[in-house]
Amino acid sequence: MSRFTIAAIQIDTQDDKRENLGKAGKLIDEAAKHGARMIALPENIDFIGKKEGALSNAESIPGPTTEFFSEKAREHKIWLHCGSIGERIPGEQKLYNTSLLMNPSGEIVGRYEKIHLYDVAIQNGPSTRESDTRKPGKDIAVCDTEFCKVGLSICYDMRFPELYRIMALRGALVMFVPANYTLFTGKDHWEPILRTRAIENQCYVVAPAQIGKKPAFQAYGRSMVINPWGTVIATAEDRECVVYATIDTDYVEAIRTQLPSLPNRRPEAYRW
Amino acid sequence: MSRFTIAAIQIDTQDDKRENLGKAGKLIDEAAKHGARMIALPENIDFIGKKEGALSNAESIPGPTTEFFSEKAREHKIWLHCGSIGERIPGEQKLYNTSLLMNPSGEIVGRYEKIHLYDVAIQNGPSTRESDTRKPGKDIAVCDTEFCKVGLSICYDMRFPELYRIMALRGALVMFVPANYTLFTGKDHWEPILRTRAIENQCYVVAPAQIGKKPAFQAYGRSMVINPWGTVIATAEDRECVVYATIDTDYVEAIRTQLPSLPNRRPEAYRW
Repeated sequence: MSRFTIAAIQIDTQDDKRENLGKAGKLIDEAAKHGARMIALPENIDFIGKKEGALSNAESIPGPTTEFFSEKAREHKIWLHCGSIGERIPGEQKLYNTSLLMNPSGEIVGRYEKIHLYDVAIQNGPSTRESDTRKPGKDIAVCDTEFCKVGLSICYDMRFPELYRIMALRGALVMFVPANYTLFTGKDHWEPILRTRAIENQCYVVAPAQIGKKPAFQAYGRSMVINPWGTVIATAEDRECVVYATIDTDYVEAIRTQLPSLPNRRPEAYRW
Repeated sequence: MSRFTIAAIQIDTQDDKRENLGKAGKLIDEAAKHGARMIALPENIDFIGKKEGALSNAESIPGPTTEFFSEKAREHKIWLHCGSIGERIPGEQKLYNTSLLMNPSGEIVGRYEKIHLYDVAIQNGPSTRESDTRKPGKDIAVCDTEFCKVGLSICYDMRFPELYRIMALRGALVMFVPANYTLFTGKDHWEPILRTRAIENQCYVVAPAQIGKKPAFQAYGRSMVINPWGTVIATAEDRECVVYATIDTDYVEAIRTQLPSLPNRRPEAYRW
């Protein structure tokens, strides 16, 4: 099938996991009712709060949170990208920041642990050391769906073009970038980087984002879906909401045929 | 020295080489008078016209065109990036699309032959097969200057993040992207891609562009200089002109310290 409706959910996750999942569930219901066949949530959908809370709220996978999302996928017979959740790692103090993709039967068919952790200290801006509480993943994730292959990434990963290039070369036509982006960086970096990932890899980019005031910063929001020409085809307002777009895999192929920049790569010249 | 003025020249090159060089020379004079220590020209500065003219106007390096630019660099004691010119290759029917960097003594201290050739056929848009007349280069070029290392690239190269990443890893703080960009692609791709190259590599991007109607398409213009935060700090109007910006290598270091995305790369995870 060439065309399907995708939904990106923008939400204000805070430190009450039960409330967070409740809100996410309602927006998933709304998106499914609207006809979305694939629905995507933002980074840290389960919990955003103090360090101790992040650790105590983390779960194993599978666990109650993934079971909640599996049930939603089954209920609506949708593909569900759970944004990311804090994953407890046996024998470790730190968590993975983990994305999951569920099929319409509620089975986990893709997982990705965030590779690039956000350790920054911006002058007169927000400072964050994600590696204080998180362990980085090491595996790139491209997953099969009934529509096309999709690539998984999270937030800060977007600054690393290598990741998206490799996912494109492995066949991904849709790249997910669930995020909890800061207003300070987002105002200048969010849209140009996401558009460029779409343009240079000629793929869709689906970026569901956190909105609202978090402990360390104001979240930027502006969840968006970008087509393989780099046009922003859906943008969220500054509130909790769902945005929709049509993914058309035939259009990806058309763009790639007309402007064949992927085959025009010159890997033999790239001496790393 | 941390700070210096750079100039990007926007020009409408056509098929009279003598006239083209005359216009370029006047704009170089203007930029030097304004205090620019480094001056950059667009792609195909010597000739834009029919295929036969491109071949017959091409020269060896050194040759009369490079001697003209060397003299300008010496006269004004400036660093001069010649955009690109058609370079005759001994024993070959095809040319290199070659960038040259000259020091204030007029010596050629850097050269780059365009690696990625523009072979595209956009539906209801311009079609070009650069490889009909050009041979691709294979070597990445990062050059020393008195201010910092600079990286050389040309136009279509900008769609290939690998090139800029490698130049950044080799120490380039300023990336040159002389261009002859089409209006059709430029309206959607020019600014987001250039900004993203600056943001992801935390470097300056200097992109002097052709303006005007060319045989195959309308040129986009909008020559720009972008700082390592991704802010467009100079943009050309839609006419032949010079734009100026301050390059501050201390600012590059400040950005790289606050948001250390280059050291946060995870090369061990990038399995090409």
